Amino acid sequence: MLSEVATDFDRDTAITPLSEDTYETFLGDRWSIGVVPNGGYSTAPIIRALCERTGRATPVSVTTHFYRPAVQLARGHIQTEVHRSGKTFAHGTGTLGQEGQERSRTTAVLGDLPVDPSSELIAPPPVSIPGPDECPGRHGGSQGISLPLLDVVDVRLHPDGPGRAEDGAVVLSGWVRFHDERPPDPLALTFFADAFPPAVLGVIDNVGWVPSLELTVHVRRAPVDGWIRAAVSTTDIQNDLLIEDVLLWDETGALVAQARQLAKPLLKS
Amino acid sequence: MLSEVATDFDRDTAITPLSEDTYETFLGDRWSIGVVPNGGYSTAPIIRALCERTGRATPVSVTTHFYRPAVQLARGHIQTEVHRSGKTFAHGTGTLGQEGQERSRTTAVLGDLPVDPSSELIAPPPVSIPGPDECPGRHGGSQGISLPLLDVVDVRLHPDGPGRAEDGAVVLSGWVRFHDERPPDPLALTFFADAFPPAVLGVIDNVGWVPSLELTVHVRRAPVDGWIRAAVSTTDIQNDLLIEDVLLWDETGALVAQARQLAKPLLKS
Repeated sequence: MLSEVATDFDRDTAITPLSEDTYETFLGDRWSIGVVPNGGYSTAPIIRALCERTGRATPVSVTTHFYRPAVQLARGHIQTEVHRSGKTFAHGTGTLGQEGQERSRTTAVLGDLPVDPSSELIAPPPVSIPGPDECPGRHGGSQGISLPLLDVVDVRLHPDGPGRAEDGAVVLSGWVRFHDERPPDPLALTFFADAFPPAVLGVIDNVGWVPSLELTVHVRRAPVDGWIRAAVSTTDIQNDLLIEDVLLWDETGALVAQARQLAKPLLKS
Repeated sequence: MLSEVATDFDRDTAITPLSEDTYETFLGDRWSIGVVPNGGYSTAPIIRALCERTGRATPVSVTTHFYRPAVQLARGHIQTEVHRSGKTFAHGTGTLGQEGQERSRTTAVLGDLPVDPSSELIAPPPVSIPGPDECPGRHGGSQGISLPLLDVVDVRLHPDGPGRAEDGAVVLSGWVRFHDERPPDPLALTFFADAFPPAVLGVIDNVGWVPSLELTVHVRRAPVDGWIRAAVSTTDIQNDLLIEDVLLWDETGALVAQARQLAKPLLKS
């Protein structure tokens, strides 16, 4: 799963084993929303640790619960536990501790995804959107918060902005890749699933940050090199929480990941 | 969260504290698919334990990873851990051990859902379906497997059976309630989210059991008494795994829960 070249993403999510079940990482300051590391980013070293610990290549199902904001420019201590190691899948949990407090907890199914595209039976077709060159880059202005991560991740959004689906959902679409053009892989998909602006920005005035309480990513297929196409939809906002779904396709139009998160919209300060 | 009356569901998901962080339960044989307890059922005592341990009324986000089949007519040992206890939410994990082996692990956000319906901003509208009296009861014939749980749960399916959505998804709709008419509540919703037949039965021949690898339920609102309306859709089948989404509404048409699972279709023996 690790790329050979030391790309931005690989360098800033690297792990060092400390013992059989613990690893150390260091969270950088380039993958942040404001001064808080993006949840998809802070989860990546945990997934690396779980893959290494279980000897599996790929995160297949990854659920992360976020309790406290991660800390940028700070070491992280990753504690792993393997619950079962089966023929097809391994199941494990990893926690990220920083400054003496557990920040998040990731429970995952790890495996080896087959690459045979003929195995597809049903998958949502790719969302219709102009090519990346015709889509403007994401910028942080409307959120009232700085977005350092846009210096390392190239996020393009549909020129028409967010829209409404028939069922009332707020939807947006776009493209994503690393600025250094590191090829996408399953680990990158788990991060890309959390790299788009919340679609809800188009609906609720005055929303700034929308931190995730829980994020689940299902990686469905290893992507080919190139841009990743995304459809983001907020289907359900009630009781001060929202559910946001993300679909990701690679440049062949194959569905490569599905994600859903429960998040809490916070007002701009 | 516990009902006052000893209903089937409450009796068969009851827990007894053994220590500050451990509980005992006993899984019955009436909530099974074949001889294996349904995953939504075997998770219910874990959720009870997490609510009791954290002093919160309601499961808000529940993710369960299933490693090994649970065992019916057997004691279960529930081990809980609280990761954070905040003002609004508590975060915890509970595991179910039986016969010396961990069977499943549930990571949850627990809280107290407000009941103010005016807080709704966006929610998928209820699926269109004839009333429960016009929908036939689910039966186990086509799966080639006995379904004891249909004696305790009344599952009605749309008379037209599964259909195909525009995007290729296989969809089915129906109604559910307990046969003893125990009122639905957030705990019941986490079970109902796993009580429908896999929509995929209408697409892949020869599929029998479709065990869950991972199931996430987001409870969005406490339901009113009455039937729960459900829309089940399989959006994505590839690489021998499928993703199934479930939406649940109460009799007022309010969306009360969303669920998604990653599952593995197994062929009939």
